[in-house]
Amino acid sequence: METPVTAAVLDAARAAKEAQPALARLHRAEKDRVLRAMADALVDRAGEVVAANARDLAAADAAGIAPGLRDRLALDEERVAAIAEQLRDAAALPDPIGEVIRGSMLDNGLELREVRVPMGVIGMVYEARPNVTVDAAGLALKAGSAVVLRGGSAALHSNTALIGVLRSVLAAHDLPEDLIVGIDAHGREGVDVLMRARGLVDVLIPRGGAGLIRRVVENSLVPVIETGTGKTHILVDASADPAQAVPIVVNAKTQRIGVCNALETLLVHREIAEEALPLLAAPLAEAGVRLHADDAAREILAAAGTAAEVVPATAEDWDTEYLARELAVAVVEDLDAALAHIRTHSTGHTESILTRDLRSQQRFLAEVDSAVVMANASTRFSDGGEFGFGAEIGISTQKLHARGPMGLREITASKWLVVGQGHVRP
Amino acid sequence: METPVTAAVLDAARAAKEAQPALARLHRAEKDRVLRAMADALVDRAGEVVAANARDLAAADAAGIAPGLRDRLALDEERVAAIAEQLRDAAALPDPIGEVIRGSMLDNGLELREVRVPMGVIGMVYEARPNVTVDAAGLALKAGSAVVLRGGSAALHSNTALIGVLRSVLAAHDLPEDLIVGIDAHGREGVDVLMRARGLVDVLIPRGGAGLIRRVVENSLVPVIETGTGKTHILVDASADPAQAVPIVVNAKTQRIGVCNALETLLVHREIAEEALPLLAAPLAEAGVRLHADDAAREILAAAGTAAEVVPATAEDWDTEYLARELAVAVVEDLDAALAHIRTHSTGHTESILTRDLRSQQRFLAEVDSAVVMANASTRFSDGGEFGFGAEIGISTQKLHARGPMGLREITASKWLVVGQGHVRP
Repeated sequence: METPVTAAVLDAARAAKEAQPALARLHRAEKDRVLRAMADALVDRAGEVVAANARDLAAADAAGIAPGLRDRLALDEERVAAIAEQLRDAAALPDPIGEVIRGSMLDNGLELREVRVPMGVIGMVYEARPNVTVDAAGLALKAGSAVVLRGGSAALHSNTALIGVLRSVLAAHDLPEDLIVGIDAHGREGVDVLMRARGLVDVLIPRGGAGLIRRVVENSLVPVIETGTGKTHILVDASADPAQAVPIVVNAKTQRIGVCNALETLLVHREIAEEALPLLAAPLAEAGVRLHADDAAREILAAAGTAAEVVPATAEDWDTEYLARELAVAVVEDLDAALAHIRTHSTGHTESILTRDLRSQQRFLAEVDSAVVMANASTRFSDGGEFGFGAEIGISTQKLHARGPMGLREITASKWLVVGQGHVRP
Repeated sequence: METPVTAAVLDAARAAKEAQPALARLHRAEKDRVLRAMADALVDRAGEVVAANARDLAAADAAGIAPGLRDRLALDEERVAAIAEQLRDAAALPDPIGEVIRGSMLDNGLELREVRVPMGVIGMVYEARPNVTVDAAGLALKAGSAVVLRGGSAALHSNTALIGVLRSVLAAHDLPEDLIVGIDAHGREGVDVLMRARGLVDVLIPRGGAGLIRRVVENSLVPVIETGTGKTHILVDASADPAQAVPIVVNAKTQRIGVCNALETLLVHREIAEEALPLLAAPLAEAGVRLHADDAAREILAAAGTAAEVVPATAEDWDTEYLARELAVAVVEDLDAALAHIRTHSTGHTESILTRDLRSQQRFLAEVDSAVVMANASTRFSDGGEFGFGAEIGISTQKLHARGPMGLREITASKWLVVGQGHVRP
């Protein structure tokens, strides 16, 4: 039976699908003009957006929101200006659409081209972060796709205000407003409907915590790009240079806490553990990082009289994405043991080896089956901005379609053009 | 609760996953040697395979199998030799693995490379066609992936014999036999388990009728590449050259019946309909094609005294993939009406415009949102072999990961390699 929410969400998705061809026809200059006008409108109407946000914040405060979540939800005029800047950044990026990916002339004279085309309608499901609303809408527009946005009911008023500003700019440019539609008003039931809107929505991208992502992956009939939880590993190999390893590990763990490319498990080769572990533990302790260490690591750290807070690792520690000042630490017998540990516990996001041995580096890069595999670099570089994509939609931890940091190109599709002169198949 | 089938299928998938790294380490020359040895073994042991097939055929005959399906199931020594030849063809193809897709050195000196890697474990669900068993196993092996094969219980003995031959060759080359596993013995329940084997199977590719594909798409938790039903359209534009249009339409409809790239709906521009329709109908009538025509087309054909069998088109005709000597025919007012018809009724497989007008061709190629969009060529060219891929796993009608004919490259994944010299993120 069709509920009012079902009807409303399917109508929204259908409206987006019907609006999208108008966008597909625009050239880059026209799309960029709209993006810059959206940025201007956001700055002009920042007061309105901040006022709407204040309503969300009041409700969130009344409900006792956690400080971290409140900070992600809160907007002021400065933050709105920063959000507007994201749209100008999107305008400055090259247009992915129209790229000829490959092409040839066949033996029979048929001309063959694979070209990059818009995905169509992109569904985004994320948590109460109003900046994602604008970012996702802007990147989708640049990539020629309509978006259906579901940003968490805690941000309902903020998102409604932001989407209202963007839609008014679309209308002012004679574009269908339904290129950007929000379904926050329909709550979790709205997400359920969106996940079943096969044929109306071309891809669904969940961004947020592990629970949200799993719910979408397990229930969606629409194809999903899974973005990821990062149970990220660094292996300090036997041949690692401690002078290089220590700053990398500290950077990977503490340069920014609570992000998916932050370090979560440190593996140390037995041959270097006695030397390296105390050196690593000292700055981690200073940064307030608690170590969840296996027996071997605890023994070494205790013998060295470490200042770090060390607790025994439990079985769960090897699979926990802390997103906090916590770090799992294990001593591994050799490279094979490290690879086996990673194979068992990695979420396939990012792993890095610190080594001076060419063969170890080669094997690690070849054998670790993750989206991003590094040598002698901090896992914090696993990021669309750092990779030079100019924008990041998320980091895919699945193997289909896109793997690793996703930029504009990763939210496009392709099609084949075949031009003949009366060709029939013999 | 875990049933015996669940346990058996999950064990099979797990065994394939554990076997796969051994394959990932092989270089092209080694993989090709195994493929050629498999071809030799199939020829040597063809008698065994044909005997197993006879058991399937006897059961199928007793169950009253349709002649077309029986023909797809039947093997003799000559067909086994042809199947072996597919493996030699796979050996002759370039290795997709290891290709550097893109790469750069970042401003900070980090070396970045996106490289092509094996998918991991590929699940194939298809109907009783033993040749697909060998073809899928061979292409997966070439692409570095293990396969879990479910080929339809009607082909159980044939597939078991074929897989037995292939596995014995793996063993003879010191490779794990579980790189190729069959789950035909577990019936439809086995497919249900396979569809839920997330984490063990990286991608599921259904090949077969619309019912099979829909069942997999709607129920799979494992990412699916949807291969396609083709409700394929040709538009004979106002400016088409009838001397070119007639052979293309006849070729698209009759060169091979029952394939997904065969023509299913013919749209004729009103301005040329009176001239072109009778010319098109004559050779179609000769080929025994029945026309399901709309009122306007029927009127023109009746006035011309056509020899073709013409029946009134029903609403279902516009959405039916006949795979038979039947063709839907409609007169369209103009290019916009044709594009709207295609937008509503196409399955996104292949459409072609026959025209001499540059603007019509440009609009058709740009605006039709299908995997393959053609001008002045028969839809029968929408094929991996014709595109020069050397092999075809199927034709994707979805937008994610692969669109259109899929070759070896489309059953691979990628990963990012990042090499630094002690890089930390500022």
